Amino acid sequence: MDRRKIVKSLGIGGLASGVAAASSFPKPAISQGLLQWRLVTTWPANFPGLGTGANLLGELIGKMSDGRLTVQVFGAGEIVPAFEAMDAVGSGTVEMGHGAPYYWQGKVNAASYIAAIPFGLTAQEQNAWFYFGGGQELADKVYAEMGAKFFPSGNTGTQMGGWFNKEMNGLADYQGLKMRIPGLGGKVVAAAGGNVVNLPGGEIPPALQSGAIDATEWVGPYNDLAFGLYQAAKYYYYPGWHEPATVLDCFINMAAWEGLPDDLKAVVEAANRAVNVTVLSEFVARNNDALNTLVNEHGVELRPFNDEILSGLGQLAGQVMNDEASVDPLSREVMDSILRFRTMAGAWAGVSEQPFMSARLLPFEFATPSGG
Amino acid sequence: MDRRKIVKSLGIGGLASGVAAASSFPKPAISQGLLQWRLVTTWPANFPGLGTGANLLGELIGKMSDGRLTVQVFGAGEIVPAFEAMDAVGSGTVEMGHGAPYYWQGKVNAASYIAAIPFGLTAQEQNAWFYFGGGQELADKVYAEMGAKFFPSGNTGTQMGGWFNKEMNGLADYQGLKMRIPGLGGKVVAAAGGNVVNLPGGEIPPALQSGAIDATEWVGPYNDLAFGLYQAAKYYYYPGWHEPATVLDCFINMAAWEGLPDDLKAVVEAANRAVNVTVLSEFVARNNDALNTLVNEHGVELRPFNDEILSGLGQLAGQVMNDEASVDPLSREVMDSILRFRTMAGAWAGVSEQPFMSARLLPFEFATPSGG
Repeated sequence: MDRRKIVKSLGIGGLASGVAAASSFPKPAISQGLLQWRLVTTWPANFPGLGTGANLLGELIGKMSDGRLTVQVFGAGEIVPAFEAMDAVGSGTVEMGHGAPYYWQGKVNAASYIAAIPFGLTAQEQNAWFYFGGGQELADKVYAEMGAKFFPSGNTGTQMGGWFNKEMNGLADYQGLKMRIPGLGGKVVAAAGGNVVNLPGGEIPPALQSGAIDATEWVGPYNDLAFGLYQAAKYYYYPGWHEPATVLDCFINMAAWEGLPDDLKAVVEAANRAVNVTVLSEFVARNNDALNTLVNEHGVELRPFNDEILSGLGQLAGQVMNDEASVDPLSREVMDSILRFRTMAGAWAGVSEQPFMSARLLPFEFATPSGG
Repeated sequence: MDRRKIVKSLGIGGLASGVAAASSFPKPAISQGLLQWRLVTTWPANFPGLGTGANLLGELIGKMSDGRLTVQVFGAGEIVPAFEAMDAVGSGTVEMGHGAPYYWQGKVNAASYIAAIPFGLTAQEQNAWFYFGGGQELADKVYAEMGAKFFPSGNTGTQMGGWFNKEMNGLADYQGLKMRIPGLGGKVVAAAGGNVVNLPGGEIPPALQSGAIDATEWVGPYNDLAFGLYQAAKYYYYPGWHEPATVLDCFINMAAWEGLPDDLKAVVEAANRAVNVTVLSEFVARNNDALNTLVNEHGVELRPFNDEILSGLGQLAGQVMNDEASVDPLSREVMDSILRFRTMAGAWAGVSEQPFMSARLLPFEFATPSGG
């Protein structure tokens, strides 16, 4: 994912021009001890999995607090454009936001590592880092620089490697490859010799069709099917080494957060944990049906990156991460913590889920549901 | 895990005799609109990861409701013995319980499939099944037969294959193997020719040391280290094909649940989702350090099951699952739903997390934290 693809995606091209003046919306009010907050998102209203996650967050807080704190959710552009959401929250124009940490890397560099790093953590490892590995405290430090309190608030799970109109048979195939891939993943592809470009989402399909670009990454089947990329590219590569588990964020104006009574703080924190597990569950439950539609109805060719490509990209990713972490001390601190956790969690995954999932794919005959 | 190992584990041998009469505890009270509930668990008080999960559930509900619903948590044996927890909840002696679904398979056979099935779902797939795959509704149907409302309330993640004093080099090594392994996994080992026995937790270490048994399964490093099994067995095999992601359950007396106002229902449901992700995170964060201690300080030999063993056990597991599902119509209904979801989720995992985790283990050099 990148900053642009969300705002421009799904044909919602009017978002940038559809920005309403903040003054045209009612200001937050406190009456009879009832708090009314506004939540701005980086997602188009009701965007599947992402915008609906923000909706759920607002609903849960309102329900659990019995209306003592209600949260009205706004899609991108309804109060402020998608990528002004953090400014709106930091300045107190609104109390709350929902997006993804790497959207704020221009403000605080370390934010991008909190979202996902190439060859980094799986979704449940990301959560373990936040809740038991010091990640919450480090993320709070990053977001405090933007005037906000942070909570992890959803995860896409492992994304796909991307859409390609060229077969990728070795690392050498990245030489000169024109690929739209933002952020840290883009730096790795550039290091492999790729010609990395950035395009707004709406310009991707024509660019793929004209050959202006050879490839693009996006999210995963559940979102990609709706976006129609199968009409413009032939090969769908996996796995998404560049975004193995992308974190969504909830950010709250610091003064608004600190002004909450303890019970409402507990409500907001638990609502975010509930949304965190629910959003990931939605992607896990819905991606495969979408993938089947792509392959069986739209003739998409599903391809794995081979080990030579993945090893080569992994090596380059390591160099890129080392360079990135040198930008400033907070980047180094966050990166060090993630790298230590990754070593530990990767070792555990290597004797638990990873070999279990491999074992499950062995060619034995398993039980079948009645009726086949 | 099994019914007995939890109650007898960690040297807490007095649990069975430490049962207090329910009448010696204050009855639930409603004063000034404040509800006071009691939660009984199948875990020793403060049992790492499991009992602490139940504690967190109680705390969150009390905090979020600002004391309108407080939950006092009792360890196994403090009000009723561990495996009378469901009876205590179903009958209304207490309002709430926390344990694991397979403890109730003697009451409703299908309960065991809700906990985990051999070669079944990973933790995030279990959650996706509950929240988006019809699992919540089916589990509610199972628990309604016991007079209770169900919520998933934690997950151990992939367990270990177990502790062995014999090397396992092929499926034939299961012939005559004396192994303590309960439930569905035990039926699979028996189908492979094993001599399956059940022993209370406290009797396992001497039985391993005397050769009365050759092997036992338990949980994973975080719990197994504390239990001291490394003193009695040499080889620690992975992965835990028999319990790939074991669900913990919250069960609530149906009348108590239905009597809650909507805001407190929302609090209880979201608290369970929060506990669900938090408990899993704790296991993911803590297992590797414990595994390192076992291997590096206690000389445990870590061994993978080979593909011939895993394929063979997978085939047998399929037959056992088919037989099990024939026990009654509800078992068939639950099993069918899980099997369909497993096929779909397994296909998605096979192009996302599984190849990502394999890629991450390729021998490339990655970034290192400063200071090494």
